[in-house]
Amino acid sequence: MPITANDINRKSWLEVPKNSDFPIQNIPFGVFLTKENVVTVGTRIGDFAIDLGALQQLNYFEGIELTDDMFMQDTLNDFISDGQKTWRLVRNRIAEIFDAENPVLRDNTKHKDVVIFKMEDVEMQLPVLIGDYTDFYSSKEHATNVGKMFRDPENALLPNWLHIPVGYHGRSSTIIPSGIPVHRPLGQTLAAGETNPVFGPSKSIDFELETAFITTDVNIMGESIPVDETEQYIFGMVLLNDWSARDIQKWEYVPLGPFLAKNFATSISPWIVTMDALEPFRTAGPTQEPTPLPYLQQKGKHSFDINLEVAIQPEKAEPTIVSKSNFKYMYWTMSQQLAHHTSNGCRVNSGDMMGSGTISGPTPDSYGSMLELTWGGKNPVKLSDGTERKFINDNDTVIMKGFCQNDEVRIGFGEVSSKLLPPFVKK
Amino acid sequence: MPITANDINRKSWLEVPKNSDFPIQNIPFGVFLTKENVVTVGTRIGDFAIDLGALQQLNYFEGIELTDDMFMQDTLNDFISDGQKTWRLVRNRIAEIFDAENPVLRDNTKHKDVVIFKMEDVEMQLPVLIGDYTDFYSSKEHATNVGKMFRDPENALLPNWLHIPVGYHGRSSTIIPSGIPVHRPLGQTLAAGETNPVFGPSKSIDFELETAFITTDVNIMGESIPVDETEQYIFGMVLLNDWSARDIQKWEYVPLGPFLAKNFATSISPWIVTMDALEPFRTAGPTQEPTPLPYLQQKGKHSFDINLEVAIQPEKAEPTIVSKSNFKYMYWTMSQQLAHHTSNGCRVNSGDMMGSGTISGPTPDSYGSMLELTWGGKNPVKLSDGTERKFINDNDTVIMKGFCQNDEVRIGFGEVSSKLLPPFVKK
Repeated sequence: MPITANDINRKSWLEVPKNSDFPIQNIPFGVFLTKENVVTVGTRIGDFAIDLGALQQLNYFEGIELTDDMFMQDTLNDFISDGQKTWRLVRNRIAEIFDAENPVLRDNTKHKDVVIFKMEDVEMQLPVLIGDYTDFYSSKEHATNVGKMFRDPENALLPNWLHIPVGYHGRSSTIIPSGIPVHRPLGQTLAAGETNPVFGPSKSIDFELETAFITTDVNIMGESIPVDETEQYIFGMVLLNDWSARDIQKWEYVPLGPFLAKNFATSISPWIVTMDALEPFRTAGPTQEPTPLPYLQQKGKHSFDINLEVAIQPEKAEPTIVSKSNFKYMYWTMSQQLAHHTSNGCRVNSGDMMGSGTISGPTPDSYGSMLELTWGGKNPVKLSDGTERKFINDNDTVIMKGFCQNDEVRIGFGEVSSKLLPPFVKK
Repeated sequence: MPITANDINRKSWLEVPKNSDFPIQNIPFGVFLTKENVVTVGTRIGDFAIDLGALQQLNYFEGIELTDDMFMQDTLNDFISDGQKTWRLVRNRIAEIFDAENPVLRDNTKHKDVVIFKMEDVEMQLPVLIGDYTDFYSSKEHATNVGKMFRDPENALLPNWLHIPVGYHGRSSTIIPSGIPVHRPLGQTLAAGETNPVFGPSKSIDFELETAFITTDVNIMGESIPVDETEQYIFGMVLLNDWSARDIQKWEYVPLGPFLAKNFATSISPWIVTMDALEPFRTAGPTQEPTPLPYLQQKGKHSFDINLEVAIQPEKAEPTIVSKSNFKYMYWTMSQQLAHHTSNGCRVNSGDMMGSGTISGPTPDSYGSMLELTWGGKNPVKLSDGTERKFINDNDTVIMKGFCQNDEVRIGFGEVSSKLLPPFVKK
């Protein structure tokens, strides 16, 4: 089915600011709350939020097979579960509805009043009920940097890393949308040279710059999906900040991996940008040497050219960009991650989310965490207000942005922004 | 509120076989499917399944505040979310309804026909929608045994183990109830002495004897729960078989922990035995030395005396018991696990499940996995049909049972039984 929604010649009758992440060629999906306390599935064009539930009730999706309440829901899970054909039909239809040449909704003020909201008048929600959340570790630069600092500089990359898209399970209950603040966690840490741990607020809160993809129903238990067939199961992507408490992590993570150091919060951008919208930005990833095992081998371009950046904004100061990276640096592709995840028959459901792992580029200014940017605290990052950071301070806001850009179109993610608050105090 | 359901002098008008795990003092909760394809929340007395949805519709829960469809659901999440007071009111009421001296339901054949089913006529379902699944690693004997085999025999226990109830996140999507078979997973493994991994069926499928507890809504994000307050949030316990592929685990688990080696399947017993029913079997766990940090310190008895056993049943042969252990050997208690889990503010919801970790006792016949029972394959286990096992063969069924017993009453879990099938073949 042609993805007519990607037509670069189409303009919308809704105003789209220059350099907006959300031209009519994007059409991401999300869930928002209106001032009337209605929760609905929606999309975004320019700085307008569009109520897909209202559009459906007004018959704008006629001819597309959808359950009656498909968009009058507080999650996208059912829509995502319907599969790629439905996603395309709906996205193509939305493009038609908002096409500058199409008068049907454009000239119907009554309908527009119930369908279109200013972004500032809605509150973005978590777009999916995430059943299971997996976080991968697929940047060779990040894995190498961490290995150099924490383990052996001479053998920074562990022997399995070049063969396996290493991943582990994260916590779904603390995944939150952009805008929700995070409390500095307490935890056990062991100071250098000590033998007895202490309990208290973490002293080294870090971000990790990641993206994540959201799947539809992939398989039944026991079934594995060939790598060449995985892409059809990926609905879209978001930006992800994998908040990390490095001092807690260091003490707890052997032998079963990070746990409390990570599960206090994971922030994601609220609009899921579809793989269809990202299609024009498909690119090849790094050469994989040694050649992966056959179940992970793929030909062609399976990465995406997505510019990423991280800024730190102290309270009452301007943000300073501290890292610029790109998704295309990732060694393992999303298709390989998903093929690996199902290779043992592990069931993957609609709304499951898989994080990329920290996206570090080849140069020090492209590293995706404070741990790497400051090289373990040795080189503090300077902010524009004159202060320095080894890690994130209380009341700092961490802002991650991402966008694809070519000569014709810009497809962006908006941002995931989250403020670090002091430790939680019970009221 | 008194737990009158625990009255040891009460007898039921329903027949309870001698040594049944389900006397009227148990009253566990589960979800079952009837032959009429109705899914309902239920309980069990003797070999009868009792439809709590039907009981509610017939007004047997009058006077207890419950939403109208509390038991006409396919999960226990809403009931568990209602909290300890409701659990006790309902359990006490069920005990009254089935008390030998109470004629109301006993003498109402019409009602009995729609409420009571033979166990053989119902199909047990997964009792809860498990949002997040955490698996701990809280048996000192197990951690020591694994450390001796895989790491350093002289320093088997890692430095953090005596300070932290070590745990990690598991996969919710592949948690299945007793009776559902499991396919032998494929995966990457590295043979001894080789440098290149291969992909194929795992050659070392193991069980891990565990229990798990199910929580109600525990906290909001950021909030930690003092160890002395955690027990009220624990609804009940099940038996758990943490299926493991040892060869996959060995190659993949550094540095982020087990992933595909575990997430192909986790089997649980279908009846959740309430903490109230287990109350008479409260006992002290092992002495904790060094003294844990204050947030993990507790006084009194916080473990439970639960007898556990594992049997392997080859196809067309009798089961052989290969391990007898007891929950009371666990070093860290469930209250400590839950206090630790929330110590960083990680949110825990109704229906979340936390596994104990492999429950190995002090003697070789009480070890909770084939890895330990055979000491890494050196001492195969002999079965009653004359065959030997280093690990689990295709078409073997692994059966775990658990029960508490004193002079007055036996409270049991029934079993978690699951057959290992050959690798999945797409039809």
